[in-house]
Amino acid sequence: MKAHVYVTLKRSVLDAQGQTVAGALRRMDFKGIADVRQGKYFQLTLDGSLAADPARAQVEVERIAREVLTNPVIEEFTLRVEP
Amino acid sequence: MKAHVYVTLKRSVLDAQGQTVAGALRRMDFKGIADVRQGKYFQLTLDGSLAADPARAQVEVERIAREVLTNPVIEEFTLRVEP
Repeated sequence: MKAHVYVTLKRSVLDAQGQTVAGALRRMDFKGIADVRQGKYFQLTLDGSLAADPARAQVEVERIAREVLTNPVIEEFTLRVEP
Repeated sequence: MKAHVYVTLKRSVLDAQGQTVAGALRRMDFKGIADVRQGKYFQLTLDGSLAADPARAQVEVERIAREVLTNPVIEEFTLRVEP
Protein backbone atom coordinates (compact mmCIF):
# COMPACT_ATOMS: atom_id res chain seq x y z
CA MET A 1 0.00 0.00 0.00
CA LYS A 2 1.23 3.48 -0.82
CA ALA A 3 0.70 6.92 0.66
CA HIS A 4 1.43 10.20 -1.11
CA VAL A 5 2.40 13.44 0.64
CA TYR A 6 2.56 16.77 -1.20
CA VAL A 7 4.44 19.59 0.54
CA THR A 8 4.18 23.14 -0.81
CA LEU A 9 5.25 26.55 0.37
CA LYS A 10 2.46 28.51 2.02
CA ARG A 11 0.75 31.02 -0.28
CA SER A 12 2.30 33.89 1.70
CA VAL A 13 5.85 32.64 1.03
CA LEU A 14 7.66 33.66 -2.15
CA ASP A 15 8.17 30.59 -4.35
CA ALA A 16 11.31 31.45 -6.32
CA GLN A 17 11.57 28.02 -7.97
CA GLY A 18 7.97 28.17 -9.16
CA GLN A 19 8.43 31.69 -10.52
CA THR A 20 11.56 30.62 -12.37
CA VAL A 21 9.68 27.75 -14.02
CA ALA A 22 6.77 30.06 -14.91
CA GLY A 23 9.22 32.56 -16.46
CA ALA A 24 10.92 29.79 -18.45
CA LEU A 25 7.57 28.59 -19.81
CA ARG A 26 6.71 32.13 -20.90
CA ARG A 27 10.05 32.55 -22.67
CA MET A 28 9.56 29.17 -24.36
CA ASP A 29 6.20 30.40 -25.66
CA PHE A 30 3.95 28.04 -23.76
CA LYS A 31 0.59 29.81 -23.52
CA GLY A 32 -2.11 29.66 -20.89
CA ILE A 33 -0.05 29.10 -17.73
CA ALA A 34 -0.88 31.83 -15.21
CA ASP A 35 1.21 30.59 -12.29
CA VAL A 36 3.47 27.74 -11.18
CA ARG A 37 4.14 26.63 -7.60
CA GLN A 38 6.81 24.05 -6.92
CA GLY A 39 6.85 21.68 -3.99
CA LYS A 40 8.03 18.29 -2.80
CA TYR A 41 6.40 14.95 -3.35
CA PHE A 42 6.93 11.92 -1.10
CA GLN A 43 5.76 8.43 -1.97
CA LEU A 44 5.69 6.19 1.12
CA THR A 45 5.39 2.43 0.81
CA LEU A 46 3.62 1.06 3.88
CA ASP A 47 4.38 -2.43 5.11
CA GLY A 48 2.46 -5.14 6.96
CA SER A 49 0.83 -3.74 10.08
CA LEU A 50 0.15 -0.27 8.69
CA ALA A 51 -1.00 -1.50 5.28
CA ALA A 52 -3.60 -3.71 6.97
CA ASP A 53 -5.24 -0.84 8.84
CA PRO A 54 -6.13 2.12 6.56
CA ALA A 55 -7.48 4.27 9.40
CA ARG A 56 -4.26 3.92 11.40
CA ALA A 57 -2.22 4.41 8.21
CA GLN A 58 -3.97 7.74 7.63
CA VAL A 59 -3.21 8.92 11.19
CA GLU A 60 0.41 7.73 11.08
CA VAL A 61 1.20 9.21 7.66
CA GLU A 62 -0.35 12.50 8.74
CA ARG A 63 1.90 12.50 11.81
CA ILE A 64 4.97 11.82 9.63
CA ALA A 65 3.97 14.57 7.20
CA ARG A 66 3.43 17.08 10.00
CA GLU A 67 6.43 16.22 12.20
CA VAL A 68 9.08 15.20 9.67
CA LEU A 69 8.33 16.15 6.08
CA THR A 70 6.95 19.67 6.53
CA ASN A 71 8.50 22.83 7.97
CA PRO A 72 5.37 24.33 9.55
CA VAL A 73 6.77 27.87 9.50
CA ILE A 74 6.77 28.11 5.71
CA GLU A 75 5.17 24.94 4.34
CA GLU A 76 1.88 23.10 4.31
CA PHE A 77 0.97 19.61 3.14
CA THR A 78 -1.80 17.50 1.72
CA LEU A 79 -1.79 13.72 1.68
CA ARG A 80 -3.54 10.78 0.12
CA VAL A 81 -3.47 7.19 1.37
CA GLU A 82 -4.34 4.69 -1.34
CA PRO A 83 -7.34 2.57 -0.42
CA MET B 1 -8.27 25.59 -13.19
CA LYS B 2 -5.24 23.75 -11.84
CA ALA B 3 -3.01 20.97 -13.11
CA HIS B 4 -0.70 18.87 -10.96
CA VAL B 5 2.52 17.27 -12.18
CA TYR B 6 4.46 14.75 -10.09
CA VAL B 7 8.05 14.05 -11.14
CA THR B 8 9.92 11.13 -9.59
CA LEU B 9 13.22 9.40 -10.23
CA LYS B 10 12.89 6.23 -12.26
CA ARG B 11 12.83 3.03 -10.18
CA SER B 12 16.27 2.10 -11.54
CA VAL B 13 17.84 5.34 -10.23
CA LEU B 14 19.13 5.52 -6.66
CA ASP B 15 16.98 7.96 -4.65
CA ALA B 16 19.39 9.25 -2.00
CA GLN B 17 16.92 11.82 -0.62
CA GLY B 18 14.20 9.21 -0.22
CA GLN B 19 16.57 6.79 1.49
CA THR B 20 17.69 9.53 3.87
CA VAL B 21 14.08 10.26 4.84
CA ALA B 22 13.36 6.54 5.27
CA GLY B 23 16.42 6.19 7.51
CA ALA B 24 15.40 9.20 9.60
CA LEU B 25 11.90 7.75 10.08
CA ARG B 26 13.38 4.44 11.26
CA ARG B 27 15.68 6.21 13.74
CA MET B 28 12.71 8.26 15.00
CA ASP B 29 10.83 5.02 15.66
CA PHE B 30 8.07 5.44 13.11
CA LYS B 31 6.90 1.89 12.31
CA GLY B 32 5.47 0.42 9.15
CA ILE B 33 7.24 2.47 6.47
CA ALA B 34 9.00 0.11 4.07
CA ASP B 35 10.29 2.66 1.58
CA VAL B 36 10.26 6.38 0.74
CA ARG B 37 10.77 7.93 -2.70
CA GLN B 38 11.10 11.69 -3.00
CA GLY B 39 10.19 13.71 -6.05
CA LYS B 40 9.04 17.12 -7.24
CA TYR B 41 5.53 18.46 -7.32
CA PHE B 42 4.38 21.25 -9.65
CA GLN B 43 1.03 23.00 -9.34
CA LEU B 44 0.17 24.87 -12.54
CA THR B 45 -2.62 27.43 -12.61
CA LEU B 46 -4.13 27.54 -16.09
CA ASP B 47 -5.65 30.75 -17.41
CA GLY B 48 -8.42 31.64 -19.84
CA SER B 49 -7.98 29.77 -23.11
CA LEU B 50 -6.46 26.65 -21.63
CA ALA B 51 -8.82 26.49 -18.65
CA ALA B 52 -11.79 26.56 -21.02
CA ASP B 53 -10.66 23.48 -22.96
CA PRO B 54 -9.82 20.50 -20.69
CA ALA B 55 -8.74 18.26 -23.59
CA ARG B 56 -6.24 20.82 -24.86
CA ALA B 57 -5.13 21.54 -21.29
CA GLN B 58 -4.32 17.86 -20.83
CA VAL B 59 -2.23 17.80 -24.02
CA GLU B 60 -0.45 21.07 -23.24
CA VAL B 61 0.36 20.21 -19.62
CA GLU B 62 1.67 16.81 -20.73
CA ARG B 63 3.94 18.57 -23.23
CA ILE B 64 5.22 20.94 -20.51
CA ALA B 65 5.81 18.02 -18.14
CA ARG B 66 7.70 16.04 -20.79
CA GLU B 67 9.74 18.86 -22.34
CA VAL B 68 10.42 21.17 -19.38
CA LEU B 69 9.73 19.65 -15.98
CA THR B 70 11.18 16.16 -16.42
CA ASN B 71 14.70 14.97 -17.23
CA PRO B 72 13.79 11.89 -19.30
CA VAL B 73 17.14 10.21 -18.66
CA ILE B 74 16.50 9.70 -14.97
CA GLU B 75 12.95 10.89 -14.23
CA GLU B 76 9.37 10.05 -15.07
CA PHE B 77 6.14 11.93 -14.43
CA THR B 78 2.45 11.54 -13.79
CA LEU B 79 -0.06 14.36 -14.08
CA ARG B 80 -3.60 15.24 -13.17
CA VAL B 81 -5.65 18.07 -14.67
CA GLU B 82 -8.52 19.12 -12.41
CA PRO B 83 -11.89 18.76 -14.12
